Amino acid sequence: MIKFNSLLTAVALASSVSVAVAWDVLPTEAPAPMDNPTTPAKVELGRMLYHDPRLSSTGTVSCSSCHNTMLGGEDNRPNSMGVNGQTGGRSAPTVWNAAFNKVQFWDGRAESLEAQAAGPVTNPIEMGMKNWDEVVVRLNSIEGYQKAFADAFGGNAISKDTATKAIAAYERTLITPNSPYDKYASGDQSAMTDQQVRGMNKVAELGCTGCHSGPAFNGPGMFQKFPVHGNGMYQAKYHFTKDLGLAEVTKKSGDEHLFKVPTLRNIALTAPYFHNGAVKTLDEAVKVMAKLQLDKDLSKDEITDIVAFLNALTGEFPEQKMPRLPATPGTTFN
Amino acid sequence: MIKFNSLLTAVALASSVSVAVAWDVLPTEAPAPMDNPTTPAKVELGRMLYHDPRLSSTGTVSCSSCHNTMLGGEDNRPNSMGVNGQTGGRSAPTVWNAAFNKVQFWDGRAESLEAQAAGPVTNPIEMGMKNWDEVVVRLNSIEGYQKAFADAFGGNAISKDTATKAIAAYERTLITPNSPYDKYASGDQSAMTDQQVRGMNKVAELGCTGCHSGPAFNGPGMFQKFPVHGNGMYQAKYHFTKDLGLAEVTKKSGDEHLFKVPTLRNIALTAPYFHNGAVKTLDEAVKVMAKLQLDKDLSKDEITDIVAFLNALTGEFPEQKMPRLPATPGTTFN
Repeated sequence: MIKFNSLLTAVALASSVSVAVAWDVLPTEAPAPMDNPTTPAKVELGRMLYHDPRLSSTGTVSCSSCHNTMLGGEDNRPNSMGVNGQTGGRSAPTVWNAAFNKVQFWDGRAESLEAQAAGPVTNPIEMGMKNWDEVVVRLNSIEGYQKAFADAFGGNAISKDTATKAIAAYERTLITPNSPYDKYASGDQSAMTDQQVRGMNKVAELGCTGCHSGPAFNGPGMFQKFPVHGNGMYQAKYHFTKDLGLAEVTKKSGDEHLFKVPTLRNIALTAPYFHNGAVKTLDEAVKVMAKLQLDKDLSKDEITDIVAFLNALTGEFPEQKMPRLPATPGTTFN
Repeated sequence: MIKFNSLLTAVALASSVSVAVAWDVLPTEAPAPMDNPTTPAKVELGRMLYHDPRLSSTGTVSCSSCHNTMLGGEDNRPNSMGVNGQTGGRSAPTVWNAAFNKVQFWDGRAESLEAQAAGPVTNPIEMGMKNWDEVVVRLNSIEGYQKAFADAFGGNAISKDTATKAIAAYERTLITPNSPYDKYASGDQSAMTDQQVRGMNKVAELGCTGCHSGPAFNGPGMFQKFPVHGNGMYQAKYHFTKDLGLAEVTKKSGDEHLFKVPTLRNIALTAPYFHNGAVKTLDEAVKVMAKLQLDKDLSKDEITDIVAFLNALTGEFPEQKMPRLPATPGTTFN
């Protein structure tokens, strides 16, 4: 786990805290699967599909409605609002840097961005399409999409497979590099404040990085039980255990309350917090996590330092151009 | 009304149809009111506010949700969907080239883009904020907006007045020049097909341009009764007269069924049609308009020619960059 290829690793090792953590810089490119190499035409098509509300039954909800690319990649709501004002029980995870998750959704039930993209479109409380056949018929009725799919995949190409591949290819471009932390980890000691460095070392000392590991602080592919320790004082307030996590999908008791480890990147932008969005502020989220996962009561100063560090994980958001969405002939919405 | 400063006027005068119509090219800049000159900082702030769903009670509906800048400036729905899945009775007018309307809304009740922008935010079935005080409190809670307002207006500037001015300044940049029609009207006779030219002359001959006049084909400032002629055959199907138009606001019987003349620019992109969005296709819309406003039964060929011309009114959409929306501290949405 120890890497010696960055200044920061040495700093951490030399600190009074005897913890060795690899402080990795966020890559500027995300790996793509063998069967879906990233191409400019796919990215452009994916950008269109991702922002097109006509992928929902009512024509009002796009991927970006809940995973808002103009914000921190989600909607700042405890739970998202799908078609006809319906809400679910979970808080939308951020799309920014989701390319660095090995599994997707809070319960990790999707193994790729491609698999994730297929889900919400036909979820009755999210985008509400009956099935992907209906989506394909609608996309085929829009001439501009026929052309964009042909450009990206060649031929008569509109399908669930190609649509989700294009969306995933676009999502792989949503990376926020050059946070103060990344600059610091690359050797620029002036990039973080003393308080942020204290917070970083505290995060390592406490063991947060045992799970929130790797360049995206998301323990790629890791599932963890939440909450681990006594939930008494928070259960009445935040109802964390109502959601069974992975067991909601697998129905196995051993999977109860298992969740994918979420990224800490840009976390200062993605309130409210936790799988159910029950906690409104980052200070409270840090306090709750330390208690429930590590059985530690943090001091106010420790919390402030850690929150300062978490703010150093806000990256640079590459300028995004708006897609032009091709015209609908007539309308199918009532 | 006759202008001799374009090739096209001469063409129209020389045609077999003895109708003189000024065929004006769309300006590339919109006039701004004396008290709200357009500045880059205002436009950038307006771009943010326009696309920010946090201007709605639920955090899910922005101006762009219904007047979608990525589409033809509206939502392709018969009526729009506001907070909590609520719908109203009218179809969202396009925001593209709205700067060239002298009045706004279907009933023309707002005299400026600034006045229009204030309305939907506090409409209970649209964006659902209690009042503008609540909007100002929310914007003030977002540090990035404090800065953006100060950049645009100086000082401690967040108010209903400045927010609506910024949105209007941004909207004045949403212009789609260089349609095939504009190129033709500028002297490029190859820019429209023969069929489109036939359709254009038919539009003049029928008298459509009596109301749909001016460079935006929106008879700027003009109100017209709709429908004028017997509505029998269409009333059962489209329920046009249910909506009293301007009289819904003024409560005067003389204002019943008066509507602002809407633009024909980009009309091929903005199905469905009419104030209540009852008509799904442009062909049917042309047929219905000729019958109800001019008491004329168009042939199939005439309709096809006119629709071809209307397609020549689709302009070039300037590339739009996505705004970065500043972060919410915690959250206020439930």
